[in-house]
Amino acid sequence: MKDRACIVGVGTTAYGKRGELYDCNPIDQIRIALDLALAESGLDRRDVDGFATYSVEKLDPSALAPALGIPSVNYSSMVHGGGGGGTCGAVANAAAAVIAGQAEVVMVYKFITQPPHARFGAAYGSAQVAADPASDFHRPFGLISPAQFFALLFRRHMHRFGTTPLHLAEVAVSTRAHAQRNPKALKREPLTALQHQAARMIADPFRLYDCCQETDGGAVILVTSAERARDLQQRPVFIMAGAQGGDSLWGQGLTSQNQPEDLYVSAGHAHLAKRLYAQAGIGPEDVDVALLYDHFTGMVLLQLEDYGFCARGEGGDFVASGAIRWPDGRLPVNTHGGNLSEVYLLGMTHVIEGVRQLRGEASSQVPDAEIALVTAGPSNLPTSSLLLRR
Amino acid sequence: MKDRACIVGVGTTAYGKRGELYDCNPIDQIRIALDLALAESGLDRRDVDGFATYSVEKLDPSALAPALGIPSVNYSSMVHGGGGGGTCGAVANAAAAVIAGQAEVVMVYKFITQPPHARFGAAYGSAQVAADPASDFHRPFGLISPAQFFALLFRRHMHRFGTTPLHLAEVAVSTRAHAQRNPKALKREPLTALQHQAARMIADPFRLYDCCQETDGGAVILVTSAERARDLQQRPVFIMAGAQGGDSLWGQGLTSQNQPEDLYVSAGHAHLAKRLYAQAGIGPEDVDVALLYDHFTGMVLLQLEDYGFCARGEGGDFVASGAIRWPDGRLPVNTHGGNLSEVYLLGMTHVIEGVRQLRGEASSQVPDAEIALVTAGPSNLPTSSLLLRR
Repeated sequence: MKDRACIVGVGTTAYGKRGELYDCNPIDQIRIALDLALAESGLDRRDVDGFATYSVEKLDPSALAPALGIPSVNYSSMVHGGGGGGTCGAVANAAAAVIAGQAEVVMVYKFITQPPHARFGAAYGSAQVAADPASDFHRPFGLISPAQFFALLFRRHMHRFGTTPLHLAEVAVSTRAHAQRNPKALKREPLTALQHQAARMIADPFRLYDCCQETDGGAVILVTSAERARDLQQRPVFIMAGAQGGDSLWGQGLTSQNQPEDLYVSAGHAHLAKRLYAQAGIGPEDVDVALLYDHFTGMVLLQLEDYGFCARGEGGDFVASGAIRWPDGRLPVNTHGGNLSEVYLLGMTHVIEGVRQLRGEASSQVPDAEIALVTAGPSNLPTSSLLLRR
Repeated sequence: MKDRACIVGVGTTAYGKRGELYDCNPIDQIRIALDLALAESGLDRRDVDGFATYSVEKLDPSALAPALGIPSVNYSSMVHGGGGGGTCGAVANAAAAVIAGQAEVVMVYKFITQPPHARFGAAYGSAQVAADPASDFHRPFGLISPAQFFALLFRRHMHRFGTTPLHLAEVAVSTRAHAQRNPKALKREPLTALQHQAARMIADPFRLYDCCQETDGGAVILVTSAERARDLQQRPVFIMAGAQGGDSLWGQGLTSQNQPEDLYVSAGHAHLAKRLYAQAGIGPEDVDVALLYDHFTGMVLLQLEDYGFCARGEGGDFVASGAIRWPDGRLPVNTHGGNLSEVYLLGMTHVIEGVRQLRGEASSQVPDAEIALVTAGPSNLPTSSLLLRR
């Protein structure tokens, strides 16, 4: 796969707080993001001939293509799994499609909005319960929301390695500092470690600012072959590697009793990381900026370890050293403000920030950034990640 | 993509009439089909590391992998669209995944069963209506079931080209004759053109035997790279070409008033056919056996035209000449008995029959079959097709 496909255009809708875009037509929102992506790429709607998405997306090419004026649909795929686990997988699938000649230009798309009667992060309602019989084993004990699942997982890390709430605060505070330079970020008020520690508890050890926003919006990412990209106006960003999946035991890990010890202190990305670096022929020391899926601060720490930026158990010390802060840190993380402070679009904006960093257009630009790591949500199996280079 | 990926194992569950497998655990059924596919390929469950499916499949790798003993999930995709439109697309996506290095061995899987309160072919119930606002424009006029949609489409062909109900009978009768030699086929009683014509009308011009069965069952198809296939015990079947998609206007064609004239007398495969033959570097004259998705007899005629086996409008005459009959026809079609007489598994069995023909294992074996065309359901956008070679 290495360097044979490129991202040549990205676009987003306006961002809304939870439910603010609920009355919008999702196809109109996708069109807004698509047109921005096309405009910067120099492509036309009629050039698009493939569709890739993820996370139980119901809006499919049979509705999208005619409404968007896309005449031919030569490729379609959705990565299974809820949450933001499939974002990078959808981009990798798009890359595989153009490499294998299935399509010329694939649009990766996602629009989310939240209806008045349901919320992403809330304790699951009856529909989800019916769909997931496994929840019969944890719901009676009050374990019902994502914040709780991930809090349990992270508690284990604290127990084994002495990680503290102040390590979590550093993730929230540094990400907010980055968001303050991003005019599109929804959360730009200053945030200090003291404020972080004083905020209300959501699911111990996660306090308010450890949990990401719940927001509305959409985005489109255009993928084409390296050959085609050469003729376009936009500076291409090459897909060095795309890994998808994970250890099948981790998929049950959030509430499971039967997985290996190591997986309890992992974001489930360790196997992905190995394949990703092998594909690209690089190591963690070559990564200039990391866009790590941050639905909960603690999962950033676990991913830093999974991807080898520090040893297992040392995520807390790593961030405490200032390593993830722009501009001086060794590895600036979530320079756009992440899910925590910019917007929560199921990982699309992490890919987009990777692209912007490598084009030199980021609001917290890492000087001469050459290689970006982008990860998708460690929520479900499969999860996924990408290495991009300029 | 040409010849870089192979099908190295196929397996199916027992077939059941509508609802007979409703009380089975779908994962157990997939396991039965998978184990048969693995056994004939010489692969082990632990070799499988990718999952590809289609048609709003909810059973995903996060449930399947741990239950099947598959340790690592490196690839996942679902082709959008209902019905059997994505079958060949799922196989093509699996091929692209192994070609691009995303996974080593991808299992394409599908299990279907029909609950007591709903049926595939019945007039759509309230849930589907809610999901498809476009139906507001045709339901009030009584246009509510797939048989009706496709009957309207085929009527146009009769009107323009003089195609007759006896041409439909030839598809039903020849397919049944093939099924009589297939011990697994669910419909093996003799069927004559007279019986076909005397059967009750379902949606004019489609009578009972023009409509496929509604059945339960599951299947697995294993795809790996040509290199990996070389070391396996099974004779590999090469994927020469895989096309997916179609004209975006056809996706709305079943009930639409706003598409080009040509699409009203097409199965929506003409664009696919062009790309498919171009990828493979062959033409219709090179195809030895065709497995054409046959939810309704009339759609077989339209596909014969779309794929260039005869000119537009000549599908009726083509089949009347005996061309699709085994063993003497110029192009034996649906030698397994198809959806009409073997079993309706959303197109999986068409791919499997293609594989068996090219291995020389079919119950109505085409002598020295080298190249098989397999098509998926012309029901929805995207649809898909494959060219396989031994």
